[in-house]
Amino acid sequence: MTSKLKNKSILIMVDGFDIRYYDPTIMPVMAHMARNGFFKTGNAIFPSLTNANNISIACGCWPDEHGVTTNCYYDDQRQEAVFLEHADFLTTKTLFEKASQAGQKSALLTCKSKTTKILSNGVCFSVAAEFPEQEIREKYGDPPPMYSADINYWLCDIALDLLKNRDDLDLIYLHTTDYPMHMWPPEAPDSIAHMKKLDEYLRLFHEAAPEYTIALTADHGMNYKKKCWDLAKACGNRGIELEFSVSPVADRLLKHHRGFGGVAYVHLKSPSDQEQVVKILQSLDGVETVLDKDQAAEKYSLLASRIGDLVVLPDEDTVFGDLPEESELLAEDYRSHGSLHELQIPLLLYNYNGQPPKFKEINHNVDVSRFLFTTS
Amino acid sequence: MTSKLKNKSILIMVDGFDIRYYDPTIMPVMAHMARNGFFKTGNAIFPSLTNANNISIACGCWPDEHGVTTNCYYDDQRQEAVFLEHADFLTTKTLFEKASQAGQKSALLTCKSKTTKILSNGVCFSVAAEFPEQEIREKYGDPPPMYSADINYWLCDIALDLLKNRDDLDLIYLHTTDYPMHMWPPEAPDSIAHMKKLDEYLRLFHEAAPEYTIALTADHGMNYKKKCWDLAKACGNRGIELEFSVSPVADRLLKHHRGFGGVAYVHLKSPSDQEQVVKILQSLDGVETVLDKDQAAEKYSLLASRIGDLVVLPDEDTVFGDLPEESELLAEDYRSHGSLHELQIPLLLYNYNGQPPKFKEINHNVDVSRFLFTTS
Repeated sequence: MTSKLKNKSILIMVDGFDIRYYDPTIMPVMAHMARNGFFKTGNAIFPSLTNANNISIACGCWPDEHGVTTNCYYDDQRQEAVFLEHADFLTTKTLFEKASQAGQKSALLTCKSKTTKILSNGVCFSVAAEFPEQEIREKYGDPPPMYSADINYWLCDIALDLLKNRDDLDLIYLHTTDYPMHMWPPEAPDSIAHMKKLDEYLRLFHEAAPEYTIALTADHGMNYKKKCWDLAKACGNRGIELEFSVSPVADRLLKHHRGFGGVAYVHLKSPSDQEQVVKILQSLDGVETVLDKDQAAEKYSLLASRIGDLVVLPDEDTVFGDLPEESELLAEDYRSHGSLHELQIPLLLYNYNGQPPKFKEINHNVDVSRFLFTTS
Repeated sequence: MTSKLKNKSILIMVDGFDIRYYDPTIMPVMAHMARNGFFKTGNAIFPSLTNANNISIACGCWPDEHGVTTNCYYDDQRQEAVFLEHADFLTTKTLFEKASQAGQKSALLTCKSKTTKILSNGVCFSVAAEFPEQEIREKYGDPPPMYSADINYWLCDIALDLLKNRDDLDLIYLHTTDYPMHMWPPEAPDSIAHMKKLDEYLRLFHEAAPEYTIALTADHGMNYKKKCWDLAKACGNRGIELEFSVSPVADRLLKHHRGFGGVAYVHLKSPSDQEQVVKILQSLDGVETVLDKDQAAEKYSLLASRIGDLVVLPDEDTVFGDLPEESELLAEDYRSHGSLHELQIPLLLYNYNGQPPKFKEINHNVDVSRFLFTTS
């Protein structure tokens, strides 16, 4: 089976672009593209965290096919959580590799270095704004701080340069950071300035390369959170030690979310603990549902071998992570994601050739990237 | 191809249940079912009006297959808009007919009489609360006024009675009215009381018939609207007479929406008018997009022969309908639907047997009813 881009395309993955950040009056260019192209409010893939979604988009398939369900995983040799940052975790080819096999060239521009570590195969040009290489710094200047909105504009400027000057490229994958969404709700002036600026880049991209298809989607939404549970401590305090509890949202960007997120993968010391652990977890205020790995994998198209023994789903206000005590009330301005409550995202396609997208067929972010390719 | 219910089921179509009406703290029973069953925020079918969605749900297919795209249509013999209220408009069988062929019995309970007029084939028991038959009045009392929330409870009481006392039934289709959503936004105390009461019925339904699968979805959302255009007058005033402009939301329930909605089907006097009419329509403040019938049918899975020559899509604030002048500012409390801005609805499945629903496969209201059936 081969996959080939239908048209030169820029695929913009705006990290953390909850649909509530989309206001047509603030983003008139995006609104224009929505009206004259394809737009739908759709769903991210669960869990609503970067890797599971970013890699689904970049591979054009669901996590049960590409294998990545988390930003970090429990390494039972080292008995600790390890960041998932290597292409070896992929159980399928990326769209960049498929395009490359069809003789098409891809560039990967991302704020987060974990993205280039996982997705660089098949890419002929890549930049991670978090740690750019020397030649990138020389050409584009040093990037603004990782914990800023400005780093997104620095990356967009590179995309713009490629659109103007790299005729050989067929696909540009542009992945911003969600630091602004972690920091600011949609109505905050700083957020409005950020979304306006991203919108202006959409105009610049289209003007620079009017032949390009523009695709835009997101990996997850964002919500205020009120309370965090350390599930290992909570279970320990109630009489059962866990092997480990992973917060799959956790990555190296601690200032975004302190490593907390709205989902946990629980590893049991023994299968015989399961019944009692489920009972304890379900008794915790804010826990909505506990699924065993097979139920969760089946329901959400995940890989059962990579989500622990139990998947824990909280309400909108609750996150999980490592704490000094079993639980903690969070600061009022704390915002994060990971749960079923951060799934609503935009799905945008504009300036496509040939058969237009059908409303009923574009439902998740992964459908947006799939649409850019023909598979035969 | 035959279709058969997997399990006895009650399929609840809460007319106008915009996702913003779903607050887990107000609807704890629904929240419990969501946590322990399947829940997703999904999309209604465009146009976001009752018939196109209600009939898609009841037939388990999209409008290009069942043929119904509107509440009313332009009759070119009579040169006027006629309400679509007859089963002859269906170009496929309903799920009730398919169940009946498999020896399974369905009951159809609806507030709106248009529903029984279109969907009664294959049904062994039906009630339209708008005009109930004498024997229904004798058994259940006279219904409350059509323009009330109470009529929904009257209908739910009948559903409850059937669940308790009609062992022979396999499927109950329960279709409420959206009068409460037209009248009250989600935060209004009257709306909260309405949603709480519907939630309480979910509990009663499950207690009365614990063997039933409970499915719940909606036909469209609801938004405040600020302005209405009469497109025939607007085009006439700008130099081109239209054959007709249909407001597909219009039905006999004028108090709901005055016949105005966020979509229009424009019939041209001559194909040669098209270019100029499109130009005029696109110049009107609040019009976002004008699609020709083939584009619209292809994109939204409609039947091209039943949507006029042009489909007109407005912004969130704008509706179309018949007016004394070409446009009118609407009352501050006016709420309606029909457009791309009223598509976000709940998709709920609870207490199913066998293979559970997969997150990636349930995206529209029609997928909820489809899930209840096996097709072979």
